[in-house]
Amino acid sequence: MNPIVFAFPGVASLSDRLREDVGATSGILHWRHFPDGESLIALEGDCQDRDVILACTLCDPDRLALPLLFAARAAREFGARSVGLVAPYLAYMRQDARFHAGEAISSLHFAAFLSWAVDWLVTVDPHLHRHADLQTLFTIPARSISAMPSIAGWIRANVANPVLIGPDGESAQWVEPLAQRVSAPVVILEKRRRGDRDVSVSAIDRSVVEGRTPVLVDDIISSGHTMAETLGHLRALGSLPAVCIAVHGLFADETAAMLQAAGAARVVTTNTIDGPGAAIDVADLLTPLVRERLHSIRSSMA
Amino acid sequence: MNPIVFAFPGVASLSDRLREDVGATSGILHWRHFPDGESLIALEGDCQDRDVILACTLCDPDRLALPLLFAARAAREFGARSVGLVAPYLAYMRQDARFHAGEAISSLHFAAFLSWAVDWLVTVDPHLHRHADLQTLFTIPARSISAMPSIAGWIRANVANPVLIGPDGESAQWVEPLAQRVSAPVVILEKRRRGDRDVSVSAIDRSVVEGRTPVLVDDIISSGHTMAETLGHLRALGSLPAVCIAVHGLFADETAAMLQAAGAARVVTTNTIDGPGAAIDVADLLTPLVRERLHSIRSSMA
Repeated sequence: MNPIVFAFPGVASLSDRLREDVGATSGILHWRHFPDGESLIALEGDCQDRDVILACTLCDPDRLALPLLFAARAAREFGARSVGLVAPYLAYMRQDARFHAGEAISSLHFAAFLSWAVDWLVTVDPHLHRHADLQTLFTIPARSISAMPSIAGWIRANVANPVLIGPDGESAQWVEPLAQRVSAPVVILEKRRRGDRDVSVSAIDRSVVEGRTPVLVDDIISSGHTMAETLGHLRALGSLPAVCIAVHGLFADETAAMLQAAGAARVVTTNTIDGPGAAIDVADLLTPLVRERLHSIRSSMA
Repeated sequence: MNPIVFAFPGVASLSDRLREDVGATSGILHWRHFPDGESLIALEGDCQDRDVILACTLCDPDRLALPLLFAARAAREFGARSVGLVAPYLAYMRQDARFHAGEAISSLHFAAFLSWAVDWLVTVDPHLHRHADLQTLFTIPARSISAMPSIAGWIRANVANPVLIGPDGESAQWVEPLAQRVSAPVVILEKRRRGDRDVSVSAIDRSVVEGRTPVLVDDIISSGHTMAETLGHLRALGSLPAVCIAVHGLFADETAAMLQAAGAARVVTTNTIDGPGAAIDVADLLTPLVRERLHSIRSSMA
């Protein structure tokens, strides 16, 4: 029996490609919202003896957790042989330490929840900073790929003479290799965070950006305030119009419009989360990981 | 060591009384909401070697599930001996069967989640219709009390010459005993549901309500449409102004105002969920159940 894919909202383009690439049947996930805040999940499609793939990008994770659990458990009741999760964006990875006394380390607890709910997980560029890798968090097989090859391809095809700009020291680990891939110079800024929406970044040297298109790269665009402040610095230096790129476009509020108003010529993300700027397809990178999981299940059952 | 109580929003009056009655320390639960939909939970108060009680009324359950899990797991990390949940309102009990092909039986899956997250649970009037009792759903000790003694006390003190009206056949099991407690006649209506907000109820015989104050009793007021339709029938009969009572006031939208506009003289609920009409205190009924759980833990540890 071939696998079957059920997609939650927010990951339509990626799950369509994934389904084709692994030869899966298309299931339909119905999610009804009741006035009192409860959800009703229904699965339309045959799960019996099949490997079930739930495609669910985990932005707005508090609202998604129970519906995801209901889908996973329903699939098992309907005879699924295994239930895996393709979560192109994996939430809660930034709370990876106790920054103040009494705080829950959400990344650990969320990983425990997902490990309990499904049999395996694949994701794209999880925000791993203090955790060495996903497998220190998850008790199920959990694998990730980097979207950087796809992003590099997009930059090469769309930006002449770029200079890459990373927002903070954490970003150096992937902005520097990305700059190498596209043969561009790179600047890593320093970020000071004073609140959820209040950040400042260090100044940029004029000579670095002169005659080049600044490409701001981050793993997540959420409020967009870090990028907006950097765009302000660039505008003050009289740089060429900048391009903003992120792997994951969470886009709280009117982030994309705000960035364009702040001087971004384009705001582009991968399709780990659907959105108008989700121009960079990561299906080619993600599919092999899903195939590998399915193969591993088949091997263990054989 | 005495227990410590951490209260989520929505259950302030009940958790204050509970804390006093079981001699517990008052912890503070901090719940920060990030712009991207993530939550950060922090516990202020010493959990080491203590029995931790989380007071969390489960209206809007999708938004509450992860924060509740984070609080429970953080408490364990901080040395809690046990973690129990006082959930005065228990969500998802109405989805207790597969009403259409493919549907998840949310009540089972939600109970599995809570059984995984905490060590015991107490609640008030769970909506048990097709499930015989809580213990068929939960794998942890799960106990409930009925709020009917408190509601009966309130009716006796506030309504002269009542006639009790139950909205549907399911309600007979508790509206009939309630009517006996307050020595009042009772009418059980028939309800036909055509959608989440579209219900019709059967007609009421004029002679039953003549000269009496109709008291509409339900376990949950959510949209309020069932009660509003009944109020319309009563108004057409020229009855005395009616009183609407529910155990749990979920109050989607402007329910209370809508019921008053439809002719309700008063809309009253218990304090399982905080609200302006939450005039009926169930702490006296709930506290013994919590004491029993704490006693049971102490016995098993002795």
